[in-house]
Amino acid sequence: MEEEARQRLLRVALKLFVERGYAATTVREIVAGAGVTKPALYYHFKNKEGLYLEIMNGITTAFEQQVAELGNSQGTIRERLIHFLGGLLDGAREQIDAVRLAYSIFFGPPQGAPFVDFERIFDRILEIVEALLKEGMACGQLPACDSWLKAWVIVGTYNTIMEEQLCRKTPRIGKEALIEIIILQLETPGSTERKA
Amino acid sequence: MEEEARQRLLRVALKLFVERGYAATTVREIVAGAGVTKPALYYHFKNKEGLYLEIMNGITTAFEQQVAELGNSQGTIRERLIHFLGGLLDGAREQIDAVRLAYSIFFGPPQGAPFVDFERIFDRILEIVEALLKEGMACGQLPACDSWLKAWVIVGTYNTIMEEQLCRKTPRIGKEALIEIIILQLETPGSTERKA
Repeated sequence: MEEEARQRLLRVALKLFVERGYAATTVREIVAGAGVTKPALYYHFKNKEGLYLEIMNGITTAFEQQVAELGNSQGTIRERLIHFLGGLLDGAREQIDAVRLAYSIFFGPPQGAPFVDFERIFDRILEIVEALLKEGMACGQLPACDSWLKAWVIVGTYNTIMEEQLCRKTPRIGKEALIEIIILQLETPGSTERKA
Repeated sequence: MEEEARQRLLRVALKLFVERGYAATTVREIVAGAGVTKPALYYHFKNKEGLYLEIMNGITTAFEQQVAELGNSQGTIRERLIHFLGGLLDGAREQIDAVRLAYSIFFGPPQGAPFVDFERIFDRILEIVEALLKEGMACGQLPACDSWLKAWVIVGTYNTIMEEQLCRKTPRIGKEALIEIIILQLETPGSTERKA
């Protein structure tokens, strides 16, 4: 019962934050939409900031799970990379409205929302993919390539495919093509002349 | 003198739209910031919507220029593609605050701003790059590849590199690496098994 009210608050807040903006949404509207009292919101989330942070927590937790899974994963570099980025894309699709809210805060005026380090997620994806590429070359599974450049290509393409899920009701590209792209990129060598 | 006031209005409006949001910015604040009277704003732009559309017009005009240049361009497919995407990246950097405003409206709550078809720009880049890849294969300049998939890789990477310019004071990747990536992608073949 309490958990149900909590979930309803999260759902209604996310919907209002996305549709009308974080700043423009009031606690009064959230509790009215969720059919609960203000003290119920304060009890579960303390305030509007707490609700926002809990929604963003859903994104970062899902991300950390994928990173942890990757750490424990067996298989070839190719399999692990596909599992990691494929899992991230699935995760983004599962909470697409929370990702939408994150984008609106990241690219929009900050609206007074508490700081969440969204860039750090992108940076870690980039670091992880580059490390996997280096590992794959070191153990002879992948042809020599400029791992920094190739990491940007793979993560850059992943990022744009993820944004396609965000922007289109019927995305023109998804996980299947992402996997195909990763496989092709891993098969092809690339310049290794980059300094450092 | 009049042109100077017009430019000042555009500059101040863009700054306020980015920092505080389109909806939260008033005509009163814009004219105060620009040191002009309200009638001056009405004379040049009719209203706040007109100012916004004029700023967005700067983006679409620069884009159309790149497309027109591409239509007239000589050289190999590789040279034309590098010139096109490199030019788009330069253009985005030159008006990075206008691009920032476009992103905030596209990914954020619409804020009552008049509709601008930002998706169409992305879609046309994708179409143009795919058409160039097909032309390059047809005339034997490029190895056989799945042009649809490769277009997503090239434009997807371009898009993320452009976002890097948007997000970072000191971008970690720019035009030089973009060109290197395009060259590598054009040199490497790829699956041609996609249906249709």
